[in-house]
Amino acid sequence: MPRNGLGVTSSELYANKQADLYEAQQERLYEEQQAALCDSGLPDTEVCDVLHVPPVEMPIFSEAWSRGRWLLGLLVLQSTSSFVLEQYQQLLKEHLVVTVFLTMLVGAGGNAGNQSAIKVIRGLATGTIKTTWPSVRKTLTQQAYIGVLLGGGLSVGGFIRVFITDGSLVNSCAISLSLFMIVMTSVLTGTMLPFGLAKAGIDPANAGTSVQVLMDISGVAITCFTCNLMLNHLSQILLPS
Amino acid sequence: MPRNGLGVTSSELYANKQADLYEAQQERLYEEQQAALCDSGLPDTEVCDVLHVPPVEMPIFSEAWSRGRWLLGLLVLQSTSSFVLEQYQQLLKEHLVVTVFLTMLVGAGGNAGNQSAIKVIRGLATGTIKTTWPSVRKTLTQQAYIGVLLGGGLSVGGFIRVFITDGSLVNSCAISLSLFMIVMTSVLTGTMLPFGLAKAGIDPANAGTSVQVLMDISGVAITCFTCNLMLNHLSQILLPS
Repeated sequence: MPRNGLGVTSSELYANKQADLYEAQQERLYEEQQAALCDSGLPDTEVCDVLHVPPVEMPIFSEAWSRGRWLLGLLVLQSTSSFVLEQYQQLLKEHLVVTVFLTMLVGAGGNAGNQSAIKVIRGLATGTIKTTWPSVRKTLTQQAYIGVLLGGGLSVGGFIRVFITDGSLVNSCAISLSLFMIVMTSVLTGTMLPFGLAKAGIDPANAGTSVQVLMDISGVAITCFTCNLMLNHLSQILLPS
Repeated sequence: MPRNGLGVTSSELYANKQADLYEAQQERLYEEQQAALCDSGLPDTEVCDVLHVPPVEMPIFSEAWSRGRWLLGLLVLQSTSSFVLEQYQQLLKEHLVVTVFLTMLVGAGGNAGNQSAIKVIRGLATGTIKTTWPSVRKTLTQQAYIGVLLGGGLSVGGFIRVFITDGSLVNSCAISLSLFMIVMTSVLTGTMLPFGLAKAGIDPANAGTSVQVLMDISGVAITCFTCNLMLNHLSQILLPS
């Protein structure tokens, strides 16, 4: 065997180079697929983090059409929250505090769920988290505890925030309880979704955006349900005037 | 020079290997920095797309604390929209349609701005878009046209969506005009922000999440302003009853 002074044979070097080349090719192929999905207008930052493949130059009408389709789909999907809000017309008219803090509540749900989803996605990709039942259970238990702590901490913050602006104890309780419920639901949804996608054979990285859209809709539902219970039913029992 | 049968000298091979090694090291270092930022709880999917570095195992309290800080900051930031909504109490009480479609409007702004930001981020990373004035102007003009098309298309969709649920022509006009204004603002903000960050020496990839938070707040403001104008002032002039 001819040795070249580096302690490896040339055939070993050749095999190494070939393996590297194959890996680079595969990575390039994957990146090009992601880039194509990104150029189609999917507003998903996880798919679009392809910083090596230049975006396709499209005529203005094509770009608008290809982006507009996704936006229209998301618009229709997110507008389903209107059905929930219409059911609670009375609540919204009588208690303006619900409307005033709705954007904050819905946003908090998306952010909290996103954190959990990112953690599970990275764990699954690197193998520190697996799709086996013991691993799922362990992760879910951990995240449930974290959800309780996050929900508890944030609802204290939310209580103070609402009390400063609004001044009503009952209103502050209603919003901060909604916040707790939303954060808990969101953390659990964000944890389960990547596992579900992985089991279904779909790339778990898609969970991030999905959690945000899911929590946009269910955040509205949780807020309406919780605030209605607190402000219309419980407050009559606890504070009979 | 000893040749090893592959057409390259061993010293060339050695230099290649060293260069590859250095590049891999740099990439690893960058990924580890991003992973550390991600483990700190920043719910930013662009930063957290580090699928090769396993997430750090933290005790439950540490993880909750480190994630909770970011969430609390975002909660306070997003709650600023409550100040705007409080200014428009009368509008919200009289026109429930604004509340009912607010989540949909705010969501659409985030999505549209995100698409433009992603496009500019990828363009800057691959060099097809530059931070020179002609390139900025060209990109901005292009995106402004696309914004008009997207805003126009989506506001037609929004008009139909609101008219089906609500049945009022004036309400449908007010929501669809708000949608147009939000999409335009969002596309322009999403285009400018990566340029701004790049000029300020900050990684333009951070623009995606920032656009969404910015549009959560300004979406509420644009909706209140536009709907107030349409429903309280213009409708009295156009439809004097």
